Amino acid sequence: MINGTNVKLGKVRSAIRELFEYGRKRKAEIGEENVFDFSLGNPSVPAPEEVKTELLRLISETDPVFLHGYTSAQGDYSVRKTLADDINARFGTRLTADCLYMTCGAAASLCITLNALVCSGDEVITFAPFFPEYSVFASRAGAKLVAVKSDPLSFQPDLAALRSELCDKTKAVIINSPNNPSGVVYSEKTITALAEILREHEEKTGNEIYLISDEPYRELVFDDSISVPYIMNYYDRAIVCYSYSKSLSLPGERIGYIAVSNKMEELSEVYAGICGAGRALGYVCAPNLFQQLVKAVTGKTADISVYKRNRDILCAALTSYGYTVIKPDGAFYLFVKALEEDAEKFAEKAKEYELLLVPSDSFGVKGYVRISYCVDTAMIERSLPAFRKLAESYKA
Amino acid sequence: MINGTNVKLGKVRSAIRELFEYGRKRKAEIGEENVFDFSLGNPSVPAPEEVKTELLRLISETDPVFLHGYTSAQGDYSVRKTLADDINARFGTRLTADCLYMTCGAAASLCITLNALVCSGDEVITFAPFFPEYSVFASRAGAKLVAVKSDPLSFQPDLAALRSELCDKTKAVIINSPNNPSGVVYSEKTITALAEILREHEEKTGNEIYLISDEPYRELVFDDSISVPYIMNYYDRAIVCYSYSKSLSLPGERIGYIAVSNKMEELSEVYAGICGAGRALGYVCAPNLFQQLVKAVTGKTADISVYKRNRDILCAALTSYGYTVIKPDGAFYLFVKALEEDAEKFAEKAKEYELLLVPSDSFGVKGYVRISYCVDTAMIERSLPAFRKLAESYKA
Repeated sequence: MINGTNVKLGKVRSAIRELFEYGRKRKAEIGEENVFDFSLGNPSVPAPEEVKTELLRLISETDPVFLHGYTSAQGDYSVRKTLADDINARFGTRLTADCLYMTCGAAASLCITLNALVCSGDEVITFAPFFPEYSVFASRAGAKLVAVKSDPLSFQPDLAALRSELCDKTKAVIINSPNNPSGVVYSEKTITALAEILREHEEKTGNEIYLISDEPYRELVFDDSISVPYIMNYYDRAIVCYSYSKSLSLPGERIGYIAVSNKMEELSEVYAGICGAGRALGYVCAPNLFQQLVKAVTGKTADISVYKRNRDILCAALTSYGYTVIKPDGAFYLFVKALEEDAEKFAEKAKEYELLLVPSDSFGVKGYVRISYCVDTAMIERSLPAFRKLAESYKA
Repeated sequence: MINGTNVKLGKVRSAIRELFEYGRKRKAEIGEENVFDFSLGNPSVPAPEEVKTELLRLISETDPVFLHGYTSAQGDYSVRKTLADDINARFGTRLTADCLYMTCGAAASLCITLNALVCSGDEVITFAPFFPEYSVFASRAGAKLVAVKSDPLSFQPDLAALRSELCDKTKAVIINSPNNPSGVVYSEKTITALAEILREHEEKTGNEIYLISDEPYRELVFDDSISVPYIMNYYDRAIVCYSYSKSLSLPGERIGYIAVSNKMEELSEVYAGICGAGRALGYVCAPNLFQQLVKAVTGKTADISVYKRNRDILCAALTSYGYTVIKPDGAFYLFVKALEEDAEKFAEKAKEYELLLVPSDSFGVKGYVRISYCVDTAMIERSLPAFRKLAESYKA
């Protein structure tokens, strides 16, 4: 007689978790070094040295009543001011501290934002492939998640398809670039055109549409020629959901923020909605020690060159074995075309070679697998013969 | 056109916050030392020295990929095991690690628990006076919060009143002992009788009723003769929502847990519901560094003798000035009868003497004010003449 939706959510593991648990068992059976686990998006690179130094300094030198005390619900003012200044310096925006709301990471950022915006019965659009938890978050906020397809070659959003899905119920569009699971960065051309379509729809219907950018992978881009457009410079009803989980390798500490564009006419309403949603979901404030930390290490990242090396090794090898790989500009995921139509069957086949690859079905796309390459480079090198044999098994 | 409920929640400050903000302005006008701010329940005592030592040790000696990495959603196994063992040793329970779910503090514990249990249209009962956010949390979970009165002298729950409020819609009862705002500890007699009434109601209706104990103040009890009954020993459908905010003076770090009684027949369903609710509300895991910390300092508390001293000074002085004070056995709150019928008017009058006291109306009770004595003892001593003058102003 308790809430069945949540019981089900708690019992049904995601495809990713399921595979990870299989991997744990398999490693116990045949040895850790013989299983090639590409299932989880868990940073393998340690936090940068500055994180350790600054944590030790903060704990040694700061009054504990302040350091471990409540901040205001939206976060410590000086933290928000520092981060707003940093965003302004990097992207030419003019955010104030009061455009930022500190959160317990990206999932909290998204849940709070969706709960702030959504009225029951609204629709929220995203582009497939997408992070599966979006459905869970949107649904709890009272919205239906509508997945719009991407271009099958570039994996950029299909904007014609977007146009046909926009309707009176559309409250928001979520984008995620660099993308989990495709690794694709949405181009400036895409963002410009997307913004234009949303503005047109707003004018036509008189409804506000919010563009939410889920950006945990913003800093994980491996070529200087690639830039990740900052959505506030293209669209006024823009909200950035940021997390330090991947950029600083702090996924377990739950620290991030929501940034609301100062160019949004109804900024104070939306910000109040965010404060209210955070309150109703039980988020009193983001962890204070880590608020002070991200202020102290602004601009630093973990050593992401490791991910670039991993990507380059995998891309070159897999391509040479005959796999089709989506060009990965960022994040730490590689989206690879399955060698048979059914990605789940392909992933099962891969297990015979001890390769743990996540089938794309749960990301809303058929026929691909996701390879998380946030792993030891040595494991990648050990895994290459298995990838080759897997490809050969389809040629036979 | 965004969610109006959350905008309103974000805009309307609680009475406590409102008073705190007034205090900030007033201090700027007449000097910090001349305002007697008893508004907030923010621990004034620093975290114990062991917190600093263990944080420094964890950060210096632990692999950062582990220390700052994701834990499972329910929390690190070894942390949960240590805490379960500690609870068992203290209260004679037989919890396993899988009865515990680590959370971002008491508000998260309550929100997740309520979302796990409540089906839309259910009722959740609590006893006035109660922490005002209970209404917000219950409402977001889809339930109506029903406040049952307490005995006007002892401030123990009025169990006859409870009996008449129990109905087919009742899903849970929340208790909070030591109580915010009254400081009262619910006696073993109360808990025994309460459990019996709930069991009777379950038998009569065939509906499960959950007893939720919100326990951030469990360790803040100042006399050896006072014990806070552990609800699992009195009722099988018992869930404890714990937080380290007050016991370790870590309110800004957001760390706590939910403990589900192993004697609950449907434990695995309820635990799955908690996992699902946490997921849907965006709680990926509790902050890992602080999970490891509470494992390392199990059994330690901040120096709560300061609160006892504060309580004793205030109680003795206020009683001698003619105030009626509810006997405070724990927490760091004193519930004092207003000297006129309208507590809000009384609190306004108190402001003329620079005393910031929270009127009891927002706690669901009329005619009292709450004094948070988690403040410097020196401020309490400076405030006494003001309390005396305030009392005298009513005698004139």
